[in-house]
Amino acid sequence: MQRYFLKSNELVLTDEDFHHATKVMRLAVGDKVELVKQSEEVVVAKATQITDSFVNFEYQLTVESQVELPIAVTIASALSKKDKADWIVQKGTEMGASGFIFFNSDFSIAKWDRKKQAKKIERLQKIAKGAAEQSHRTVIPTIAYVNKIDELFQQSYDIQIVAYEESAKQGEVSQLKKSFDLIKPNQNLIAVFGSEGGISEAEINKLSSAGYQKVGLGPRILRAETAPLYLLASLSFFSELS
Amino acid sequence: MQRYFLKSNELVLTDEDFHHATKVMRLAVGDKVELVKQSEEVVVAKATQITDSFVNFEYQLTVESQVELPIAVTIASALSKKDKADWIVQKGTEMGASGFIFFNSDFSIAKWDRKKQAKKIERLQKIAKGAAEQSHRTVIPTIAYVNKIDELFQQSYDIQIVAYEESAKQGEVSQLKKSFDLIKPNQNLIAVFGSEGGISEAEINKLSSAGYQKVGLGPRILRAETAPLYLLASLSFFSELS
Repeated sequence: MQRYFLKSNELVLTDEDFHHATKVMRLAVGDKVELVKQSEEVVVAKATQITDSFVNFEYQLTVESQVELPIAVTIASALSKKDKADWIVQKGTEMGASGFIFFNSDFSIAKWDRKKQAKKIERLQKIAKGAAEQSHRTVIPTIAYVNKIDELFQQSYDIQIVAYEESAKQGEVSQLKKSFDLIKPNQNLIAVFGSEGGISEAEINKLSSAGYQKVGLGPRILRAETAPLYLLASLSFFSELS
Repeated sequence: MQRYFLKSNELVLTDEDFHHATKVMRLAVGDKVELVKQSEEVVVAKATQITDSFVNFEYQLTVESQVELPIAVTIASALSKKDKADWIVQKGTEMGASGFIFFNSDFSIAKWDRKKQAKKIERLQKIAKGAAEQSHRTVIPTIAYVNKIDELFQQSYDIQIVAYEESAKQGEVSQLKKSFDLIKPNQNLIAVFGSEGGISEAEINKLSSAGYQKVGLGPRILRAETAPLYLLASLSFFSELS
């Protein structure tokens, strides 16, 4: 069943979702969809009225489901040479991330200027919404951009980790699990990922000072856009399937 | 350091690797590279002679590393509408798969005809080689294609699983871990993934009869190309980091 995120708790579709429902999905009166309220409640609803600017729905039943990770995960990714942000947001949303922060790192070549920023974020927000609908999430992840790694430290998180290739090379294999073991329900976690050039020593030092723990993600070298998925899948396996 | 897979145990680069080393990387006499022998031994070697068709190397030292998953994993993916095979092979290789089998499922729309097959496999084999070099693997995953799911059963594996969305919907959360718990070192595992239409009931029945265990991959709906990565990351976390 097609799923839409509502802008409030009222069972009505307008704007883009109205367009998608009536033009793309050719919704007719009597058809059913799943609607996610602002309260994150998911309901099945039946279309009762279709005008030229909105569709009204009637409540049918509430869908009971726990589809969100038990811990809110923010993926903080350095901008990469080939801009992999679209990909990270789409796949990371499927895998359960609740937010993405892109940052301009010492090794980033691409940079988002002020003009580009707003457009990029808008675009990524759309990708996140689409992926959240598709993967039957009840939360649309947030997207943000910061110019420097230092700006990440304005907010602190319960669990703070940075993926560090050197850890893996030195045979470090248990820190990720140790970090996961510390997690309590309803906490939040941030994981920082470098670009394909890795992460600079200066940045690692800043992260360490801010209380970030270095973790290895296994013995194989993962691309910048693959590493966040390793983290999310591992955390899902650890917290939802084990 | 650039890594190349040798065609034998002799320290010489020819053909495409010769071209890559001399033209793309502009290798000169005295430069060092990592070479992976057919025996999977990884050595650092120094270029001693560059002709117009090969480069000879001199052994420097052996690299000690265990970068392969302790269990050989074959990813069997149904062909998808939008052909995501490139992507599955690239990312799956980074994540440690040792082989990929694509199959034409009941819900597959794309199909590889006889002509297309050879070309596709050659192309995917190149992608696997590139990703294996990049992620510092010592094994290049194999690529195969079968016309029907039945042909998968000509080979049996120690652990046989199929990703099944309905399992997740029914709240099944422990079967993946149970399957992992059964694994002994040096065994092999096959995991079957449907296309975006899922997997047909007839196919699920065939898989069950052949001894495949249905497993859920968490509560979120994963795209056909994302699910294999969830499996590989979970298995790496379970077997290499826990």
